[in-house]
Amino acid sequence: MHRVCVISAEQTPFGRSEEPGREMLIDAASRAVTSAGISPKDVQAGYVSTCFGFLEMQGHYGPLLMSALGIPEVPCTSVESACASGSSAIREAYMSIAGGFYDCVLVAGFERVMHLDTLKATTYFTMGCDRVFEGVHGATFPGLYAVMARAYFDRYGAAEEDLAHIAVKNHANAMDNPNAHLKKRIDVGDVMRSPYVASPLKLYDCCPFSDGAAAALLCSEGFARRYAQEYIEVVSSARSGGPLALHDGADLTSIPSAVRAGAEALARSRMERRDVDLLEVHDCFTIAEAVALEDLGFAPRGEGASLAREGVTLRDGDLPVNTSGGLKAKGHPVGATGIAQVVEVVDQMFCRAGRRQVDGATTALTHNVGATGGSCSVHIFRRVR
Amino acid sequence: MHRVCVISAEQTPFGRSEEPGREMLIDAASRAVTSAGISPKDVQAGYVSTCFGFLEMQGHYGPLLMSALGIPEVPCTSVESACASGSSAIREAYMSIAGGFYDCVLVAGFERVMHLDTLKATTYFTMGCDRVFEGVHGATFPGLYAVMARAYFDRYGAAEEDLAHIAVKNHANAMDNPNAHLKKRIDVGDVMRSPYVASPLKLYDCCPFSDGAAAALLCSEGFARRYAQEYIEVVSSARSGGPLALHDGADLTSIPSAVRAGAEALARSRMERRDVDLLEVHDCFTIAEAVALEDLGFAPRGEGASLAREGVTLRDGDLPVNTSGGLKAKGHPVGATGIAQVVEVVDQMFCRAGRRQVDGATTALTHNVGATGGSCSVHIFRRVR
Repeated sequence: MHRVCVISAEQTPFGRSEEPGREMLIDAASRAVTSAGISPKDVQAGYVSTCFGFLEMQGHYGPLLMSALGIPEVPCTSVESACASGSSAIREAYMSIAGGFYDCVLVAGFERVMHLDTLKATTYFTMGCDRVFEGVHGATFPGLYAVMARAYFDRYGAAEEDLAHIAVKNHANAMDNPNAHLKKRIDVGDVMRSPYVASPLKLYDCCPFSDGAAAALLCSEGFARRYAQEYIEVVSSARSGGPLALHDGADLTSIPSAVRAGAEALARSRMERRDVDLLEVHDCFTIAEAVALEDLGFAPRGEGASLAREGVTLRDGDLPVNTSGGLKAKGHPVGATGIAQVVEVVDQMFCRAGRRQVDGATTALTHNVGATGGSCSVHIFRRVR
Repeated sequence: MHRVCVISAEQTPFGRSEEPGREMLIDAASRAVTSAGISPKDVQAGYVSTCFGFLEMQGHYGPLLMSALGIPEVPCTSVESACASGSSAIREAYMSIAGGFYDCVLVAGFERVMHLDTLKATTYFTMGCDRVFEGVHGATFPGLYAVMARAYFDRYGAAEEDLAHIAVKNHANAMDNPNAHLKKRIDVGDVMRSPYVASPLKLYDCCPFSDGAAAALLCSEGFARRYAQEYIEVVSSARSGGPLALHDGADLTSIPSAVRAGAEALARSRMERRDVDLLEVHDCFTIAEAVALEDLGFAPRGEGASLAREGVTLRDGDLPVNTSGGLKAKGHPVGATGIAQVVEVVDQMFCRAGRRQVDGATTALTHNVGATGGSCSVHIFRRVR
């Protein structure tokens, strides 16, 4: 298989957008092309990721984007895997390059939901879970992740304060991310005093609804060498599935698709966990970050929740996690999220992360989950030059 | 690259379904697995194609399908490319196998729109075109294809009767397809007397809105040899893009994405056009079949419209086209259509097409277009054993 590289990744500022989704999509994609220093004509294929693009009564975003970039002849397909849509798009691009089909593939995702009221947005989000067996019975994502948090607390004795430290860390990181949605420094007391959304998860345990778009350029190593000043190898890509409905899983305190994708990505990378300099994990809720670190094997079972409190996952800690601010504070425009994780990887690997910079970081792992684990993709990156 | 094969393809009966889309999807996928004689456990990845699955307030159909099949651990991604969604899913599966990532991939697509009234369905369908520059100004697909038909008539002097023969042929083929939506034998007079939908296209020039699902199993040649009694090689796969908006194209009488995908698929197949025994082309409107035959190089410019009248494209003609009944009469459940074309290929190659059987057919080409050409995939197949 051919080696796959990333030569650029860019995003729009996350938050509320008055622009329609299509404009954000085009904006992010244009930035990625410009940032890579290539011509749109060098792009040979594309993938668009979105979950709620239909809200603008528009589908077929692939040719929409390529037409806007002046390269309508380039094939571009939309992909969707709930909150893991962005990483699914990256996965498809990865396979198409590794398989030798293309040398340069544009991946771009977006979402725009902040114009909806909370009830409506929450309802649309339940499209990612099993509508018939979960959604219509009143299950929401805060509710489903609250079930996981409650089970986790029951089994491991962790407490709400542990999760609060995760929120505080990610908000602090977002303060230094100019593209982050939530720019509010909080402390543990703020989290603890925030109202319950679905006990034991409080307002500050939950990521926001966000508008935004992100894009990345993936290419063959040959292309990267020829065109890029600096580039990052996608050392491995893995994707796994899991039960769509939470109640069909064997264990409420682990996401098996993440366990499998993480193990496969690490095995293929021939790297040890200690070789990974930083992680961007799917913290749609604080409990999700704790579980992610355990699923990926970076924390023993029951200990993922305490790593933020202990300082391990701070950006100057031993294992910086979500230096971007994560979904929690950078924001979570669903179709863009998996790609925005790569934006942080690129910023860090290319030493453009400003005050978020993790000194000497040359490797990173991204973990992007759809729903409560129906899908998960894990990618591992290593700076080449 | 690894060789890619098809070992089964099945569909639900097209027409009106009282079942929700998810049930049709599971039904078609189960049939494909059963028909292949494999266990669901042999499936390593999946792709789901749908455009309007959101109408059931459900997304994330990949894990929904895999969970229903009892293989939740298998990664499965949804893809969308308007009316070319089905062939986009096949394309992704093809690349994942050819690239050596998987040995057995399930592809399944569905749509359910017949419960909508015509205005609503027509409006949703415009999501495939450019909403801002076409849809909101009143453009519909019958209208856009009528523009193409008018331009074609003006340039080449063809007449409505020519197109009528295409409708008559495809309806006749559908009479012998037990899964076809429209089971009504018509003659040229019926077509000519049918009311205009968008002049010069009349009711019988237009495919119906259909409900339905289709699924196919693609695999490596090694897998096919080991598990399948008979199989078909996917000799080549090509996909191209085009302007999303019809008015951005250079020519109203040709779809450039089809020209490119067709030429690439033929070149990669190392086959000549005369080696192709039958074609399933995207006849959402009769004019589309005429243009498709020209875009693919099976008819000189201006002569595609007369091939049905001349008997060339009848199933006992020199070049059988849309023996299934085509979108025109077999039906057009958007997300399923590109896969249903492969169902016909499999039925023909495996000599299961009953009265539709083209004697001695061992090769076939499928052509699936999104919108007015924003995307197009062409696949070429050859029976191996």
